[in-house]
Amino acid sequence: MVELTTLEARAARALAAVADAAAAKGLAVAITVVDPAGILQAFHRMDGALSGPVEVSQKKARTAALFGSDTADFGTGASPGGEIYSIEHTNGGLITFGGGVVLRTGARLAGGLGVAGASVAADEQLARVGAAAF
Amino acid sequence: MVELTTLEARAARALAAVADAAAAKGLAVAITVVDPAGILQAFHRMDGALSGPVEVSQKKARTAALFGSDTADFGTGASPGGEIYSIEHTNGGLITFGGGVVLRTGARLAGGLGVAGASVAADEQLARVGAAAF
Amino acid sequence: MVELTTLEARAARALAAVADAAAAKGLAVAITVVDPAGILQAFHRMDGALSGPVEVSQKKARTAALFGSDTADFGTGASPGGEIYSIEHTNGGLITFGGGVVLRTGARLAGGLGVAGASVAADEQLARVGAAAF
Amino acid sequence: MVELTTLEARAARALAAVADAAAAKGLAVAITVVDPAGILQAFHRMDGALSGPVEVSQKKARTAALFGSDTADFGTGASPGGEIYSIEHTNGGLITFGGGVVLRTGARLAGGLGVAGASVAADEQLARVGAAAF
Repeated sequence: MVELTTLEARAARALAAVADAAAAKGLAVAITVVDPAGILQAFHRMDGALSGPVEVSQKKARTAALFGSDTADFGTGASPGGEIYSIEHTNGGLITFGGGVVLRTGARLAGGLGVAGASVAADEQLARVGAAAF
Repeated sequence: MVELTTLEARAARALAAVADAAAAKGLAVAITVVDPAGILQAFHRMDGALSGPVEVSQKKARTAALFGSDTADFGTGASPGGEIYSIEHTNGGLITFGGGVVLRTGARLAGGLGVAGASVAADEQLARVGAAAF
Repeated sequence: MVELTTLEARAARALAAVADAAAAKGLAVAITVVDPAGILQAFHRMDGALSGPVEVSQKKARTAALFGSDTADFGTGASPGGEIYSIEHTNGGLITFGGGVVLRTGARLAGGLGVAGASVAADEQLARVGAAAF
Repeated sequence: MVELTTLEARAARALAAVADAAAAKGLAVAITVVDPAGILQAFHRMDGALSGPVEVSQKKARTAALFGSDTADFGTGASPGGEIYSIEHTNGGLITFGGGVVLRTGARLAGGLGVAGASVAADEQLARVGAAAF
């Protein structure tokens, strides 16, 4: 099972897990995995997903990877009145609501995964499915 | 009348309907129709419309098409305190107030139409005229 | 005929003339008219035109308007070895081949018209049809 | 086997075919599939591929889809001295060498596929493997 430990194989496995979970709920989402530098690792758009969520899923994944923080947590500070408000305009634009989660190998940052296209709660839940499968 | 069912003909018909309705009220607006990917399909600027609304009408149309949501509805969540605040910075910049409406062919997303240059309420009402004529 | 002398009406007439001439040849193109500042005045995409020419037609129209020069002439200087080579990277990107023509009211600059989606020669010929109808 | 005819399934099949062919040659590449509007459909980066080719593969796929032309053919005109030189700066930047191919469903444009990370000749050959599997 050496191959399944590579980033390539783990990213593919995470995408498939999210797509399966979304299909089971009748949802159509865009799913992104990025590396620790926020650069695209793998992406999958389900049939029926709209065009807008494509970039949103990427920015969720990037936000999680670039700051080592799930987007829901990140958004607590990066919103009007929050301690790091305005940081969301850096790095090409970050996302401050749920659906982006940190990917880890043990304790080490391995990247980020973002889901967009359904409700925030559903995107968030699907992203956690992906992180668990990673 | 097959030709009138094409996207090209329907977009032209929608632009004309909005321009006529605006002229009847003494308003001068910019009107955009985009395809489901948010790419420009048709555009018309009335004499007397300022330069700024040109891009605003395009971003309204894009927002509606990319997320399958009228901009007034979209903006409820994508404003400070809203559930998807920060999404408005994706996809080249989105609009969170009225004047952008979804265009459909039956239940299927066919694009978006945006109107800008008058008041938000008037832009919104004119956009609905365009969607009805599409 | 006062109305036909407005920029709005003249732009619409130019778009229609280009679309009719293109349809007569079995071509599907994107057609843009901009004002003297290079800001969008009117746009029409024919059914069957690809997505890429949408922006190309806009940059042709902008190039013509912003420098008061048809793009074919402009390109003679703005190409490797030309006297103003590198200028094509200004103003958000300019086009250095045919298909963009200057629009005038008498001797005064009134804007630019760009056609893209067919061959350079056909785009150029269609753009001249549009300028004549303007 | 209806599901295999969807864009989602066909894109996944094309990515897998390219990755298998590349692995068989000991190559590590980035592979992108976009829809006809140039928007991301699916992406896969193989272990060992560098970061730069990620965007290159996307621009190859976009170029092919947006202009309905394989990038090797497109580049013949869009290079210094070519008939459409300067077009490569439109649409966010286009690629003028091999490795991007048009995807079709029958005669209809279905998108573009881009491969980057190996030699131009190898990228091009791998892209053709992907188009055949699509």
